[in-house]
Amino acid sequence: MKDKKILNGQEIIVNVRNLKIGGKNPKIFIGGPCSVESEKQIMTTAKHLKEIGVDILRGGVFKPRTSPYAFQGLEEEGLKMLRKAGDEFDLPIITELMDEKNLDLMLEYTDIIQIGSRNMYNYPLLKTLGGVDKPVLLKRGMSATIKEWVLAAEYLAAHGNKNIILCERGVRGFDNYTRNMLDLAAVPIMKKETGLPIIVDPSHGTGVKWLIPPMTKAALAAGADGIMVEVHPNPSEALSDGDQSLTFEEYENIYKECAK
Amino acid sequence: MKDKKILNGQEIIVNVRNLKIGGKNPKIFIGGPCSVESEKQIMTTAKHLKEIGVDILRGGVFKPRTSPYAFQGLEEEGLKMLRKAGDEFDLPIITELMDEKNLDLMLEYTDIIQIGSRNMYNYPLLKTLGGVDKPVLLKRGMSATIKEWVLAAEYLAAHGNKNIILCERGVRGFDNYTRNMLDLAAVPIMKKETGLPIIVDPSHGTGVKWLIPPMTKAALAAGADGIMVEVHPNPSEALSDGDQSLTFEEYENIYKECAK
Amino acid sequence: MKDKKILNGQEIIVNVRNLKIGGKNPKIFIGGPCSVESEKQIMTTAKHLKEIGVDILRGGVFKPRTSPYAFQGLEEEGLKMLRKAGDEFDLPIITELMDEKNLDLMLEYTDIIQIGSRNMYNYPLLKTLGGVDKPVLLKRGMSATIKEWVLAAEYLAAHGNKNIILCERGVRGFDNYTRNMLDLAAVPIMKKETGLPIIVDPSHGTGVKWLIPPMTKAALAAGADGIMVEVHPNPSEALSDGDQSLTFEEYENIYKECAK
Amino acid sequence: MKDKKILNGQEIIVNVRNLKIGGKNPKIFIGGPCSVESEKQIMTTAKHLKEIGVDILRGGVFKPRTSPYAFQGLEEEGLKMLRKAGDEFDLPIITELMDEKNLDLMLEYTDIIQIGSRNMYNYPLLKTLGGVDKPVLLKRGMSATIKEWVLAAEYLAAHGNKNIILCERGVRGFDNYTRNMLDLAAVPIMKKETGLPIIVDPSHGTGVKWLIPPMTKAALAAGADGIMVEVHPNPSEALSDGDQSLTFEEYENIYKECAK
Repeated sequence: MKDKKILNGQEIIVNVRNLKIGGKNPKIFIGGPCSVESEKQIMTTAKHLKEIGVDILRGGVFKPRTSPYAFQGLEEEGLKMLRKAGDEFDLPIITELMDEKNLDLMLEYTDIIQIGSRNMYNYPLLKTLGGVDKPVLLKRGMSATIKEWVLAAEYLAAHGNKNIILCERGVRGFDNYTRNMLDLAAVPIMKKETGLPIIVDPSHGTGVKWLIPPMTKAALAAGADGIMVEVHPNPSEALSDGDQSLTFEEYENIYKECAK
Repeated sequence: MKDKKILNGQEIIVNVRNLKIGGKNPKIFIGGPCSVESEKQIMTTAKHLKEIGVDILRGGVFKPRTSPYAFQGLEEEGLKMLRKAGDEFDLPIITELMDEKNLDLMLEYTDIIQIGSRNMYNYPLLKTLGGVDKPVLLKRGMSATIKEWVLAAEYLAAHGNKNIILCERGVRGFDNYTRNMLDLAAVPIMKKETGLPIIVDPSHGTGVKWLIPPMTKAALAAGADGIMVEVHPNPSEALSDGDQSLTFEEYENIYKECAK
Repeated sequence: MKDKKILNGQEIIVNVRNLKIGGKNPKIFIGGPCSVESEKQIMTTAKHLKEIGVDILRGGVFKPRTSPYAFQGLEEEGLKMLRKAGDEFDLPIITELMDEKNLDLMLEYTDIIQIGSRNMYNYPLLKTLGGVDKPVLLKRGMSATIKEWVLAAEYLAAHGNKNIILCERGVRGFDNYTRNMLDLAAVPIMKKETGLPIIVDPSHGTGVKWLIPPMTKAALAAGADGIMVEVHPNPSEALSDGDQSLTFEEYENIYKECAK
Repeated sequence: MKDKKILNGQEIIVNVRNLKIGGKNPKIFIGGPCSVESEKQIMTTAKHLKEIGVDILRGGVFKPRTSPYAFQGLEEEGLKMLRKAGDEFDLPIITELMDEKNLDLMLEYTDIIQIGSRNMYNYPLLKTLGGVDKPVLLKRGMSATIKEWVLAAEYLAAHGNKNIILCERGVRGFDNYTRNMLDLAAVPIMKKETGLPIIVDPSHGTGVKWLIPPMTKAALAAGADGIMVEVHPNPSEALSDGDQSLTFEEYENIYKECAK
C-alpha cells in the first residue's frame, strides 16, 4: 500500500495512564453506556465495571445521531460526569469528539479521544488531532476499505500523533439480521499493515445482544488487543442503543470467560 | 419515515442567483475540474463551459483526499481564482467545504456550498450550515441509506436552511469495474421523500469516462434536475480524477444531446 | 477482460419469431404475471397486453422460491396455459427453466428460455442451453460482477448458442428501501463488453411499484433494448410478487410514454 | 423466521462414518486441494493430512469455474482417485456436486456431498439431495442472507435429509484486499436458527494465505464445529486457487495450535 510512510507495520504500544495497549500486553476491556444519561447512571456503571475488572470507562456525551430530533447527548455536563466517575473509580475514560470546537474540553477531561465511524473521513479533524498529545481511538468508517482506514490513521501520524488505537465496529452489510457485518479479518490485516493496536466493538458490530459473547471470543482469538462493549444499568430504559447494551452481569460473564 | 418534520415531500425550488433549480425548471448543467489547479486552468475552463451553455462552474479548492500525502487543493488562493473565473464569465460557482474554519471564506466567495460524501454524516457541520443563508449541495454518503441521507438534509432544514440541492454520486459497490455504483432509483425516491431538487454526478458515480454520456441521459430520464460533471482542459494532466474527466468537446456533446 | 473469446463486443441481434431484439431495432416490451396462476388469469393478461402493444408475454411456471413451503408454480400445466395464451393473442412467450429435466418441455412450448438470477452460476445448465436452438434470456446473478456475468454468457456462446438476451434486474444492496439496487451502468457496460442485447427488469430491480415508470425511462435512456415488467389483473390477489406488479392500466401508461 | 418447520434450532449431530459432527463433539478438520489434479497429488496430500491428524479429505473433481475456458476438473476419473486416496489412508472424503446427472457417481464414491456457493439457490438440486441418504455440506451463497441460507437448508430437510453441515465461506464485500468478507457472526446465528453443525472455510473466506491461521482461531472461538482449508503439496503449481492454498507444514501448524 503506497502513501503509508509512518505506520509501516512496526509495532506501536499506546499508553493510557498506567495501561499499555497492544503488543503482548493484556487484553483491554472497555465498557460503559452508549450515552452518559445522568450522574447516577454513570457512577453506578463505573462502580460495577471497576468491580468486574474492566480497564476503561466509555460514555457518549456528544452523540452523532442519524436524526436531528434524537437525543444529542449531555455535552459538557455529561463529560464532567464521566470524568467524575472515572476519577472516583480510578478508570481512564474515553468519549467521542465530533467537533473541533469541543477539543479543549476533551483535552481537559478525557483520557482517550474517540473518532467515530461517521468521522473517519473527516480529514480536518484528523489533522487537528495529529497535533495533540492524547491517544486517539479511530473507528472504521461504515464502509471504509482497509486502505482508506489505514490512510485515515496515517493522517493522524503524518500530523504528529502515533498514539492511535484502531477499532473495528462492523461494516455496512446486506442483511438486516445484524446491524452491521463484523469484519474480523480486519483485525490481523490492520495490525500487519499499521503496527497499531486494534480493538473490536461487538456491540455496534452486531447490534444483537446475544452475539456479543461469541463475537468477543472470536475477536480476541483473531488477535484483537481488546474489546469495547456497551453496558447499561438498565438496558430497557437506555436513551440510545438499549437493544444492544449488556447488563453488568452479562458483561461480567464475558469478562470472566475471556480475560485471561 | 419518522423524524422527518420539515422536508415532507412538498416541492422546494432552490434559487442560485438567477437560476431556479427543481420542479419544472430547466435541467441544470454543472461542470468544472476536480481541483482548481491554476488561474489559467480555471479561466480556460470557465470560458469554454460558458460557451457550451453550462449553468454553474465547479472546482475543488479544499480537497478531501484519501492520502495525507496527496495534493490537498489550492485552498484560499484557489477559491479566489474560482470566484474570478465565475465573475469573468458570469457563472455561479460551487465548491466543497470540509472545515467550519473556512466558512467565512465560503460565505464571501462561493454561490453554493458543497458538502461532500465524506461529510454527509458530519452533523456539527450540517448544523452550522443550517444557520447560513446560502444554498447547500448535499452529496450522498458513500454507503448512506435513503433514510440517513434524508435525515442529513433534515439536519440542515431543522437548523434553518431549506436551500438544499441533493446529489447522487454513486454508492460503494462490490465490483471494481466502476468506481461506485450509481443508484438512479435514489433520484425519484429522494424527490418524493423530501421535495428537494436532486442532481446526479456521473463522474464519481461511475469513474469511467465513456459511461458519463449514457448515465447522464439515464439520470435526466429518471427525473434528475441536473448533472454535475468533471471537465478539464487536459484530463491527462489533471492533478486529481483525470481518468474520469471529460474534455470540453466531450461535455459539449453531452450538453447538446441532453439540454432540451 | 480475458477468457472472452466469442462475445467480443460485436453487435448481435436476437430473433424471436418476427421480433428482432438489439441494435437499432425498436425497444421490446415484455409483460406478464410473476406466476401463471390459472388459465383465466393468463388469458386475460395476454389479451390486455396485446391490446396495449406489448411484444412478449412472460409468466413463471417453475418458480424458484426462497421457502420450500411457498407456492412453487403450476409447472407443466401452467406452461401449457402460457403457450395457449401466447398462441391465442399472437405473443411470443418467455418462462424460466430451473432444472434440465424440464428442458424438453421448454423446447416444445416456450419461445425464450429464461435463466433466473439464482441460476446464473449454474454452469451445467448453461452448457446444456449452449446446445439448444432457442434464445436464452440470462438474468444477472444477485451480486454478480460484470466479469462473472459476461463469462456466464460466454458459457452459452462457447457451447454453441449466441442467441442471448441479457437482463439487468438489480443487485443486492445495503438499503431495504428497495428490494434490490438497479445498476443501470451495467446496461452500456454489458453491451460494450459482449455486443448482446440487454433489457432491464425494473420490477425486481426496485420491488416498488411507483418506481417502475421512472426506472423504465432511465433504463431506455441508458440504452436498454427493452424492459420486462410484472403485470397482474389484480395485483393484490397475486400468489407471488403482488406488491411489485402493475395493473394493465399502469403498464399501458408506461408503454404510451416510452414506446416511441 | 417463518417458513422454518423442521430446522427449528434443536441440535442435530451429523454422522460421517465414525465421525460425529456438531454439538460437543471434537472440532473437525477438513483439508485437501482445490482440485484433484493427479493420483500422485491426491495420494501425497492424503498421506500427509492423515499424519497431521486431519479428519476428512476434500478435493474438487467437478469444478464450477467462472470462465468456460478454465480447467473444469478431472470429473469421474478424479472422483475415483479421491476415493482411492480416502480408502488408502482411511479418510472420509468430500467433493462438490454441481449437476444431478452425476448424483449416482457421488452416491457411489463420496462420503459427503458438497453444495457450493453457486448452487445454494439451486432448489431442484436441493430437493433431489433431500431424498438421498448421504450428508450434505451446504455452503452459503455469495451474498445469501441468513434467511435465504436457513431456508436452503430447510429445502433439504423438507425433502427428507437432515444430515446437513453448513459452511460459512465469506460473502461478497466491497474491499478487494480479501477475496470475500468472512462473516463469523453467521456461525452462532446459524447454529441458533437451525441447530445444525457449521464449519468455516477461511481459504475462500479470505483468499489470503497468511489470514488462514488467525481466522481459523476466530472461527473456532465463535463456535464453529470445524474448518475446511485448501492444502496442496506445491501451491505454486496448483491448477486452481494456488494463492490461497497452504503447504502441509502450514496446515500442520494450524492443526497443532487449534485441535485441542
